Amino acid sequence: MVTEKIYLDNAATTQVDERVLKEMEKAFLENYGNASSLHSMGQNAMEEMEKTREKIAGLLGAKPKEIYFTSGGTESNNLALKGTMDLKNGKLIVSKIEHPSVLRTAEYLKEKGKKVVFAEVDEKGIIKLDKLEKELKEETVLVSVMHANNEIGSIQPIKEISELCGGKTLFHSDMVQTTGKLKIDLNKSGVDFASVSAHKFNGPKGIGLFYAKEGSKITALIHGGGQEKKLRSGTENIPGIIGLGKALELAYENLEEKMKKQEKMRDKLIKELSLIKKSRLNGHEKKRLPNNVNFSFYGIEGESLITMLDFEGIEASTGSACSSKNLKISHVLEAIGLDHIWAHGSLRLSLGKNNSEKEIDYTIKVIPKIVEKLRKVSAVRVGD
Amino acid sequence: MVTEKIYLDNAATTQVDERVLKEMEKAFLENYGNASSLHSMGQNAMEEMEKTREKIAGLLGAKPKEIYFTSGGTESNNLALKGTMDLKNGKLIVSKIEHPSVLRTAEYLKEKGKKVVFAEVDEKGIIKLDKLEKELKEETVLVSVMHANNEIGSIQPIKEISELCGGKTLFHSDMVQTTGKLKIDLNKSGVDFASVSAHKFNGPKGIGLFYAKEGSKITALIHGGGQEKKLRSGTENIPGIIGLGKALELAYENLEEKMKKQEKMRDKLIKELSLIKKSRLNGHEKKRLPNNVNFSFYGIEGESLITMLDFEGIEASTGSACSSKNLKISHVLEAIGLDHIWAHGSLRLSLGKNNSEKEIDYTIKVIPKIVEKLRKVSAVRVGD
Repeated sequence: MVTEKIYLDNAATTQVDERVLKEMEKAFLENYGNASSLHSMGQNAMEEMEKTREKIAGLLGAKPKEIYFTSGGTESNNLALKGTMDLKNGKLIVSKIEHPSVLRTAEYLKEKGKKVVFAEVDEKGIIKLDKLEKELKEETVLVSVMHANNEIGSIQPIKEISELCGGKTLFHSDMVQTTGKLKIDLNKSGVDFASVSAHKFNGPKGIGLFYAKEGSKITALIHGGGQEKKLRSGTENIPGIIGLGKALELAYENLEEKMKKQEKMRDKLIKELSLIKKSRLNGHEKKRLPNNVNFSFYGIEGESLITMLDFEGIEASTGSACSSKNLKISHVLEAIGLDHIWAHGSLRLSLGKNNSEKEIDYTIKVIPKIVEKLRKVSAVRVGD
Repeated sequence: MVTEKIYLDNAATTQVDERVLKEMEKAFLENYGNASSLHSMGQNAMEEMEKTREKIAGLLGAKPKEIYFTSGGTESNNLALKGTMDLKNGKLIVSKIEHPSVLRTAEYLKEKGKKVVFAEVDEKGIIKLDKLEKELKEETVLVSVMHANNEIGSIQPIKEISELCGGKTLFHSDMVQTTGKLKIDLNKSGVDFASVSAHKFNGPKGIGLFYAKEGSKITALIHGGGQEKKLRSGTENIPGIIGLGKALELAYENLEEKMKKQEKMRDKLIKELSLIKKSRLNGHEKKRLPNNVNFSFYGIEGESLITMLDFEGIEASTGSACSSKNLKISHVLEAIGLDHIWAHGSLRLSLGKNNSEKEIDYTIKVIPKIVEKLRKVSAVRVGD
């Protein structure tokens, strides 16, 4: 057992960067006005917010007026689906491996009488474009396909999907896992809407953004004082917004270099974990987030693996944090065709800016031993 | 012109208490896990959250399981209205002086085909119980009446309203302006649902809570990973939650003493501003928030008054921050029967824990002079 923790759950959430917190502190203690107030403290807050919006828009290839601040990725995903389906009749298509905030919202809309289709992915977790194309022949209001999957890291062909939508069908992409990791040019991406969450790239929790292409029509999810051009009411979370802006700026500083470093560690992990008997990499080998490793070890329980890794000082996940508390198998692993035994033995390691080669070397040593131990007590015969 | 600002806009938002920020910092930098993660960092975050929930429940006279964290008052108000009206057919009654987050949501529901009634208030801004009683004779799903008004500070007879609802009609109260200022005992209050926002009592922006009485049924507004017992999905905003808890704890420390101090300053302001020719106090003299002063000065523009006060170092508001950017008259002042000329000349001064007698004395000196100046250039003849 070690005392210094190795945090390999950066897809769940990340540590706030100290430089981010420092910028937020000023907004908590000094420039704390309500951005909707007329007085100078309010106006200063408004100016800070608009400066941040401009910076973010620049970093993501959008216009400032296309950026709307929300409380995070889940809210943005709810807004995308409910806000578009509220205005029109027609179908909603979401991939089978979307985040629960898309899937549960889609299910809710289905209960309310909307036609909803859950689109298939292949065994690497990439959406089947031919099937999607067929589905799109029927009047469709919105397609929602995430930029990259949170569990297995597979990166979707956003550009191709947007071309299939062809300007007739709205296209939303949950970019929670890719923002700050892949270069994003929203205006060129072909998406109409996108969701981003700050706490996935060393920003604060409770703040995110919603991208809506200029001119797109959508109903608000949260009504009220008319903030964010009436699309998202509520007192503007200035410290959060400033934190989001700073975190995004830092994330895109030397992006290539940082991602190369993470890719190297990712590939080392993949290479070494592949040597474990009856193991398999989940997701695509190449079309994959630079920080994502997802393995299944036949015949063990992922939850036991997480607990034992934790005891050895390694913080990891079986899949997404959201669904970690129930023992149902991951909908993502099910969608890529894993049977229950394989799906139960899943492990997600997600890298962040603080991880070091040394930590990875330690992790590589620890995992095979734990897998072996767990298999000894497992009811499932692993065989040779 | 002075350099040290006098902040009299605490109903719009407040400065975060340094002790609150200190507790949040740990969650930003150290205990930053995702509360839904299985590993120890996640579990620590979960424990912190549940400890905070218990503390908050204790302070507000609720059970911990009745407290749900949201992104703030506006979201909580949207949840109350949409979440209840989603489940049943019947009427929605909201008072005419509700916050825009209730009014705009009610209007949205009306557009969607729900029957909505906007209940009247008297000239002091207190709901007309006899009229409400009549309205309640028709099948009603929900009544939403705020605990105290954000503009004119009038405190509503919550207990009487809940008795009229009689357990047959659900009752929601927006308690954004009263939490941390009045003693609140949710379980005894008779409300089924309540909304609270942290940044109104020296907590952070972007966090609030929703109270739902044990056993009450309501549909989620934000679907997803199933956090907050499926009522509010999204990664738990642990720093925000901790900040909310600490701020509430501090607010209720020596509450009586603090509120007496604010009431004294409030009453001094009311007494002195009443001496201004053609001025009137808006709201109830006694059933009034301890920190609220709202005056109308006949024949002037509130916006000009705010700007000139700002120049003199006093940060105030015409009414709510949300509606400060448009020149429509306040719906609250309209509902209590003010004509346009009176309503345009409104000023809200809202006190906070940092205000001093000295600041109030300065404010009392400055306001009459500015009102006089503005009347000299006003198109409206004030007369004698």
